[in-house]
Amino acid sequence: MATLTRIGLAGLAVMGQNLALNIAEKGFPISVYNRTTSKVDETVERAKQEGNLPVYGFHDPASFVKSIQKPRVVIILVKAGAPVDQTIETLSAHMEKGDCIIDGGNEWYENTERREKAVAELGLLYLGMGVSGGEEGARHGPSLMPGGSYEAYKYIEDILLKVAAQVPDSGPCVTFIGKGGAGNFVKMVHNGIEYGDMQLIAEAYEVLKSVGQLSNEELHRVFAEWNKGELLSFLIEITADIFSIKDDKGDGYLVDKVLDKTGMKGTGKWTVQQAAELSVAAPTIEASLDSRFLSGLKEERVAAAKVFRSGGFTDILSSQSVDKAKLIDDVRQALYASKICSYAQGMNILRTKSIEKGWDLNLGELARIWKGGCIIRAIFLDRIKKAYDRNPNLANLLVDPEFAQEIIDRQAAWRRVVCLAINAGVSTPGMSASLAYFDSYRRERLPANLVQAQRDYFGAHTYERTDIPGSFHTEWFKIARQLKN
Amino acid sequence: MATLTRIGLAGLAVMGQNLALNIAEKGFPISVYNRTTSKVDETVERAKQEGNLPVYGFHDPASFVKSIQKPRVVIILVKAGAPVDQTIETLSAHMEKGDCIIDGGNEWYENTERREKAVAELGLLYLGMGVSGGEEGARHGPSLMPGGSYEAYKYIEDILLKVAAQVPDSGPCVTFIGKGGAGNFVKMVHNGIEYGDMQLIAEAYEVLKSVGQLSNEELHRVFAEWNKGELLSFLIEITADIFSIKDDKGDGYLVDKVLDKTGMKGTGKWTVQQAAELSVAAPTIEASLDSRFLSGLKEERVAAAKVFRSGGFTDILSSQSVDKAKLIDDVRQALYASKICSYAQGMNILRTKSIEKGWDLNLGELARIWKGGCIIRAIFLDRIKKAYDRNPNLANLLVDPEFAQEIIDRQAAWRRVVCLAINAGVSTPGMSASLAYFDSYRRERLPANLVQAQRDYFGAHTYERTDIPGSFHTEWFKIARQLKN
Repeated sequence: MATLTRIGLAGLAVMGQNLALNIAEKGFPISVYNRTTSKVDETVERAKQEGNLPVYGFHDPASFVKSIQKPRVVIILVKAGAPVDQTIETLSAHMEKGDCIIDGGNEWYENTERREKAVAELGLLYLGMGVSGGEEGARHGPSLMPGGSYEAYKYIEDILLKVAAQVPDSGPCVTFIGKGGAGNFVKMVHNGIEYGDMQLIAEAYEVLKSVGQLSNEELHRVFAEWNKGELLSFLIEITADIFSIKDDKGDGYLVDKVLDKTGMKGTGKWTVQQAAELSVAAPTIEASLDSRFLSGLKEERVAAAKVFRSGGFTDILSSQSVDKAKLIDDVRQALYASKICSYAQGMNILRTKSIEKGWDLNLGELARIWKGGCIIRAIFLDRIKKAYDRNPNLANLLVDPEFAQEIIDRQAAWRRVVCLAINAGVSTPGMSASLAYFDSYRRERLPANLVQAQRDYFGAHTYERTDIPGSFHTEWFKIARQLKN
Repeated sequence: MATLTRIGLAGLAVMGQNLALNIAEKGFPISVYNRTTSKVDETVERAKQEGNLPVYGFHDPASFVKSIQKPRVVIILVKAGAPVDQTIETLSAHMEKGDCIIDGGNEWYENTERREKAVAELGLLYLGMGVSGGEEGARHGPSLMPGGSYEAYKYIEDILLKVAAQVPDSGPCVTFIGKGGAGNFVKMVHNGIEYGDMQLIAEAYEVLKSVGQLSNEELHRVFAEWNKGELLSFLIEITADIFSIKDDKGDGYLVDKVLDKTGMKGTGKWTVQQAAELSVAAPTIEASLDSRFLSGLKEERVAAAKVFRSGGFTDILSSQSVDKAKLIDDVRQALYASKICSYAQGMNILRTKSIEKGWDLNLGELARIWKGGCIIRAIFLDRIKKAYDRNPNLANLLVDPEFAQEIIDRQAAWRRVVCLAINAGVSTPGMSASLAYFDSYRRERLPANLVQAQRDYFGAHTYERTDIPGSFHTEWFKIARQLKN
């Protein structure tokens, strides 16, 4: 290699390899490096096979860094946490003032802010960039959420605009998110929303299968049909696919052989913890996380099922026959209405954090860059973008006129589905948490007055009144004692 | 004062004053100190008026510390966080090896563990002691949750046993909780459970008032009646009281004038964050926290109510007449069953943390010391103690034979109440989250298989099978594409 490459990438697991190939394919010569050097050769070989892409491999960090044109930009794609620190230490030793490091992992946003400060002392710039879309996305067009140094973003904006997923009419799925750890934080909430979407789809499946007695063939047709309408999305599409796949190790469909234990990697947990930290209600996302926790207790659940069955509990309480077509239509509406609530929660986490950190997040723009490449890509995001275009200061997606009308139109079906599930002994934690969220949010008067009266009773925490301004305390105990005597 | 006192207390806001008077009243001469010295004189004056109690005031930390017999024990009751550090710094300057500091505030457990190590370098012992029961409890008998140095606990066990609430047949409401920050952690979860109890009572109120159209007089009678049975508890008792109190600033009842905004102090938030950290599902406690958050958005709720009303949404959908007596009985059962779920979640947070930290928490013993003094005191705790006495390794309170039977007996009513609320457009987030928790936990097969199949589809996260051991990955996309062609 005589000339210098445009950019470097360190960390060549599947995501790293794919992103490197994607960048090279878009016409940007790229240097690649990995501590285990066999991965370097593997990547270079893949680049050859996939069309002689301009990927240049290096076995040591010094020559890797020196092979990149200045100001040098290196994307690192290693495990979040300590491996990122180690990689930064290794690479920065060979980098010069004005060079830039981009962490493309699912990193905790505060780690990015800490590292941005640390490398600034070496004169280096830093970006924390959320990358969504899995392996496929990395290879053919992910959704990119870069945050940190705007100067560094401008170095590689031309690359990112080409590498990102391209959506007709709305452009490449990348935008500068904001300073500091904004990119990682937005990716984290994106994942929290993804948890919600997946859980709500699972509940739709559960109701259709357990209450509606739909076969996998029918489920496949239902989800394929749904994917033509308002629910059109990557997750609905792959769900339809899943129901069509036969078991290669036995009879029947593969989905029925998959153990009902869901793994997780931490971003959903962080989202829930941050929602609590920010005083933002996120019950749908919480229900999704809790469902993953409960799914993991398979042995306990099997034992509990026995305890309750032997106590006279029958699994499906309502045995009345169900009108399948009507049920399918109701479940679609319940899923859609619940999804609105879930996104409302995620967007409000982002809005609240943005205010706290001064990130100035553009929520409509986030909806736009999630329209392609990422796991939650959906036609639905267009409506969210439009809602924030109509009113950038929207307090909650639920009160956007279009969404409000959609909920009003669907609420009867939504209530029918949740009650049907409850009476069948089937749990729909995400749908029912969403419904409770909606019914709480649109309620002028909640029973919180009683809770505040209790707090003033036992802890003298005071209360406000509906009619007179100020803060009040009542000697509830003394008065009640007098009334009793 | 010629002789030395037995113990000292620094920080004389209401809680501190009351606890000092309580200790003195039980026969232990006590030294008291406060940075703002007027509080010292105020406390000494109160001690005189409340029966010449042996309370000795000091205006400077040196003479305060020197007035206590060795090994000196000082309880501090100041705001959590920095004020605790400052008070420790002030006092420890005058303390000697073997002396002990006890923080009685609602402190984050890791702060206690940090301080325990820091003062150990000075040769001092440390306890973080949860104190529950509000001002009344502090004065006349709180529930005490001391954790940290067992040696320090033994110095003052005789005092704590007398100062704590005394419950017939089960003794004083204090026990050594465990090492490190165990005492603070247990108090934190106690408060999380308290959030759950209060929210569930508020929902019972909401259903009875909004669906059952009960008046405050009727609500008073209902809660007073409930307080004679399985729901007998401090919170039900004060709820009955609250409904009996007339507004002193206008017509009608005071509870109707209290603004529906609930405050909070942080322990509920910590409980939810810790549950997520520990992978423990805690949906009832989360719903309680979220309800407080949503209660705070009063202006948004008023605006949202208008949006939906103008969109054709009517507040109460079901206008059919309700059988009041039946509704009251159903709501009682729903409240009780939901309460079991909430406590099951709290106890599982404690059990999981105990394993992680090696605290060796005795869950039955915790239920015992919560039977008096504290806000969640209730006859119900007896059943929890018995459940853990029967099986100290109980995976979940739900599967204790007695609780399981109670839930089976109540589940029909529980489902009726939640569905009635849903159809009335009234939210019962805590009750419905509890029900979904129960229906998930006792379900042998959850739809988590679909979620895991999705994760393997887009992220190659692999899955387990129901029939063959091992970890599997399927090329879902490729197979589905083949099927489509």
